[in-house]
Amino acid sequence: MDANLQKLIDTLGSLNFSEMYGSDFLLTWEKTRDELDAVYTVADSLRRMRELNISTKIFDSGLGISLFRDNSTRTRFSFASACNMLGLEVQDLDEGKSQIAHGETVRETANMISFMADIIGIRDDMYIGKGNTYMREVSHAVREGHKDGVLEQVPTLVNLQCDIDHPTQSMADMLHIIHEFGGVENLKGKKIAMTWAYSPSYGKPLSVPQGIIGLMTRFGMDVTLAHPEGYEVMPEVEEVARKNAAASGGTFSKVSSMAEAFQDADIVYPKSWAPFAAMEKRTVLYGNGDDAGIQALEKELLAQNANHKDWCCTEEMMKLTRDGKALYMHCLPADINDVSCVDGEVVASVFDRYRAPLYKEASYKPYIIAAMIFLSKVKDPIATLKALEAAQHPRWFQK
Amino acid sequence: MDANLQKLIDTLGSLNFSEMYGSDFLLTWEKTRDELDAVYTVADSLRRMRELNISTKIFDSGLGISLFRDNSTRTRFSFASACNMLGLEVQDLDEGKSQIAHGETVRETANMISFMADIIGIRDDMYIGKGNTYMREVSHAVREGHKDGVLEQVPTLVNLQCDIDHPTQSMADMLHIIHEFGGVENLKGKKIAMTWAYSPSYGKPLSVPQGIIGLMTRFGMDVTLAHPEGYEVMPEVEEVARKNAAASGGTFSKVSSMAEAFQDADIVYPKSWAPFAAMEKRTVLYGNGDDAGIQALEKELLAQNANHKDWCCTEEMMKLTRDGKALYMHCLPADINDVSCVDGEVVASVFDRYRAPLYKEASYKPYIIAAMIFLSKVKDPIATLKALEAAQHPRWFQK
Amino acid sequence: MDANLQKLIDTLGSLNFSEMYGSDFLLTWEKTRDELDAVYTVADSLRRMRELNISTKIFDSGLGISLFRDNSTRTRFSFASACNMLGLEVQDLDEGKSQIAHGETVRETANMISFMADIIGIRDDMYIGKGNTYMREVSHAVREGHKDGVLEQVPTLVNLQCDIDHPTQSMADMLHIIHEFGGVENLKGKKIAMTWAYSPSYGKPLSVPQGIIGLMTRFGMDVTLAHPEGYEVMPEVEEVARKNAAASGGTFSKVSSMAEAFQDADIVYPKSWAPFAAMEKRTVLYGNGDDAGIQALEKELLAQNANHKDWCCTEEMMKLTRDGKALYMHCLPADINDVSCVDGEVVASVFDRYRAPLYKEASYKPYIIAAMIFLSKVKDPIATLKALEAAQHPRWFQK
Repeated sequence: MDANLQKLIDTLGSLNFSEMYGSDFLLTWEKTRDELDAVYTVADSLRRMRELNISTKIFDSGLGISLFRDNSTRTRFSFASACNMLGLEVQDLDEGKSQIAHGETVRETANMISFMADIIGIRDDMYIGKGNTYMREVSHAVREGHKDGVLEQVPTLVNLQCDIDHPTQSMADMLHIIHEFGGVENLKGKKIAMTWAYSPSYGKPLSVPQGIIGLMTRFGMDVTLAHPEGYEVMPEVEEVARKNAAASGGTFSKVSSMAEAFQDADIVYPKSWAPFAAMEKRTVLYGNGDDAGIQALEKELLAQNANHKDWCCTEEMMKLTRDGKALYMHCLPADINDVSCVDGEVVASVFDRYRAPLYKEASYKPYIIAAMIFLSKVKDPIATLKALEAAQHPRWFQK
Repeated sequence: MDANLQKLIDTLGSLNFSEMYGSDFLLTWEKTRDELDAVYTVADSLRRMRELNISTKIFDSGLGISLFRDNSTRTRFSFASACNMLGLEVQDLDEGKSQIAHGETVRETANMISFMADIIGIRDDMYIGKGNTYMREVSHAVREGHKDGVLEQVPTLVNLQCDIDHPTQSMADMLHIIHEFGGVENLKGKKIAMTWAYSPSYGKPLSVPQGIIGLMTRFGMDVTLAHPEGYEVMPEVEEVARKNAAASGGTFSKVSSMAEAFQDADIVYPKSWAPFAAMEKRTVLYGNGDDAGIQALEKELLAQNANHKDWCCTEEMMKLTRDGKALYMHCLPADINDVSCVDGEVVASVFDRYRAPLYKEASYKPYIIAAMIFLSKVKDPIATLKALEAAQHPRWFQK
Repeated sequence: MDANLQKLIDTLGSLNFSEMYGSDFLLTWEKTRDELDAVYTVADSLRRMRELNISTKIFDSGLGISLFRDNSTRTRFSFASACNMLGLEVQDLDEGKSQIAHGETVRETANMISFMADIIGIRDDMYIGKGNTYMREVSHAVREGHKDGVLEQVPTLVNLQCDIDHPTQSMADMLHIIHEFGGVENLKGKKIAMTWAYSPSYGKPLSVPQGIIGLMTRFGMDVTLAHPEGYEVMPEVEEVARKNAAASGGTFSKVSSMAEAFQDADIVYPKSWAPFAAMEKRTVLYGNGDDAGIQALEKELLAQNANHKDWCCTEEMMKLTRDGKALYMHCLPADINDVSCVDGEVVASVFDRYRAPLYKEASYKPYIIAAMIFLSKVKDPIATLKALEAAQHPRWFQK
């Protein structure tokens, strides 16, 4: 067997992840460290097998359902890629933004689209207090459907972004960090700055910063969150970060300037997001169909944003980081000064220098999603990976 | 071989369905009883094989084309599921509602989308006198295309709902009944009430009640149709039902109240539909692009509907049925009182009690569609099912 | 081995096309005659294998990305068919018409959708000077992404129609001609008339006439281009046609009436297109978001078109051709007099007589696209075709 792959399978053998079989992946902090490490290891294994032109199809047929409340090219393609490499065909269900289904409708629709579904990927990040709850409703409905003999199989869920967490993003980000720092064991004590940055747009989801502080604190890192006053994230997630840091031997701290956060940082993640309180207000306004109220709120928030144009990842800021060479990260697309906007999250020279690593960061997402699916659908992942390797069925056939 | 599967294959051996090979499935009353029974038996066989994790892919590549005049999540997912389990990839062609293609255009489009098509599923239920005709035009066009060497294969058609019949729905409904009553041989003399019910919406297709009376009369059942005055279905289909009943030793009768229909019924199917005469009017208005006329007609019909709010499947109504325990059926989604509307087709307590069987009823549809495709594309279904079973290729691979 | 297939594989053995491996297919005149002949031969081989029910799937998983600036049912289905027969699943990315992405955005999007992409098909024919350039930007971006370790594989490109050329159309047209005339060796000295024809619509792309004169001049044919004054095609492409004709021993000439062009023609291709100069103007207007300007231009051009209603392929025109029996060609859909419009490109009696060959012409396109993909993705096409034939894996399994 390929030495790299052998090493990955050996690592997998040292981890306890048996409870992932048949489980959903909704919040990273519901998973143990071993389970997170299993996702990284399977993601690397699947990628290695693709490099070796070994088919990783575990499904001969079956559907991967994507349920999006929002248009999303990147997430859609990542999910489709993950499903495709495992043998599932994607069927998209695009629900309108404004249509917040409840109770009977969720239960019924969830079953009606799942007759041949092995996995359901949901993105629902628009409304505070709704997205994650909706996912649990869907999960409950299809499990009940299976119990009642409606569905031959239990479709498990992958959270493709909700109001609270963005696990496929933060897990892909972490796998990128692991590779950049030469292994998960090298992360202890490394400082990561998750900071707000100015953007001329309004209403960017909180799930990215929340996902980052909720996950990175699991690895003994020094996680610093920075944002202007009024741009708080959900207090529950800060509490998660605090507890994680205490348990993992790292720290979680909050500062009030980008410069302070960047100081001696090994990794920086400057990114815009909307204030939690404003998102709560907007959720109520949407619920009431109050278009005028929504527009007034947006105007107000754009004005508030404009007070913080100095929150930009400039060359001067980067100089503050460890040796001036922190790893710059972003979930993409970024608002780049003089490229996609006048004032934005980052200057072009910084972005350009990190373009290749930024794209590489994004490239882990399909493999992370595939690993989440694999671990949820395969009872003995080690034996199954070995069997796939032994079969040597070429993904791309040629003589 | 699995005993259940063996029994199903034995049943198949006793039926004559050789003419289904290469044929379309457009109206249930164009098929013999043996052919209908073959569809049920193959549907059960495919479902059993899925339970046993045996791949039923008969296509290594090939397309299933879906042609919808109307948005339809459920039908789309059922068709996609059926295609997927047989190895066909779905390509959707969404034609606009208002675009009624004719002659040259139908012929050309049908061929242009069918170069790799093995099956075409069409839903066209909007216009009385058009949908089924359109399907026959498409079928004729692709058969001509094959004869002329344009298409390497003949794509066969499955009617996913037309103005006259809804065979995938009624056949799935019947398979549900067969399982609930322990076999097709137990249906003789059973009473089914197909009744109109009040809905606050307007213009629901006639294809469901027509499909039900056109099919259920084939099995020696006592089929009772009930609706308020003015909500007649197509007289041609009533005539079909009458003839069917005479031939099968059952009855077809019409009554003018829900209570009368429910009396001693074994099965009840209360569901709203639009009056046939109104649908004919609307077809003309659509053809003339007369938006004002359409709106006036809709208003008039909503007012007419509102006179019949007492046509609701209440607990009192259910008490009239055999032992108060008739099987409640619906094609879903239902208009449920105080859940999806104020006044609707059924009260919540009845719906809730039958939720699991209702979902199960719906779950037969993908298998019914797959069976229709299988019987149309496979010359020797018995030998092919045996070969698939013998191959034991896992649908979902794991070690 | 099947004798037909053996003959095709033998032909392939006599051609030099090694540089196609890993290459894009953007303009026919960037390819050698041997390379074009390889596409025809592989297209015929894949079609023959489909007739013989032999699977041609070379991909076990993988995505074919379609990137359309414009709605396109036919091209979408042709591309999907080609991908499907090789084992790739299609993912569509529909960019809006007005959204002309540049630089950073193109580079980023191209990579973000390509993590599992083996092929990218692009249709971008709206803006003169943009479409082909855009394709090269995408190609460059994904090659850079592969070099940087972002993409495991290099997705290669197929031009599904641009501002300059329409290679999948012209190549399918040529394969049709080859079959109609009994072999590519019989085309020397044959006259083809590529002529403008009247259409009541405005703004039809130039890529078809340009593609035809750019390709047909490679085969020693006498290619005649005819159009009213003011309907010039791109001068660069006329120059390509002139050079091609000189090199291949054919001719390229321009005349100013349909009758002159049809005189003694073996093949006629009467089709509407917009004047190049007007398309250039429109591109500027679109760039400025000048809706009023666009509408004024369209009105002006419709009026200009209306002066040339006599440019119609009538029975009288057809009588001028060789023995009155020239092969009539069109990329479809055609504007047919008294069928799809009052005055159009062709009278119904001519169109009807040629319907079967017209559909057959179109039927080559999926195989041409599949051949372009095959030759770009397979290093040794001859050995691979032989291996697929030897495996005899049925596309459509039955016992």
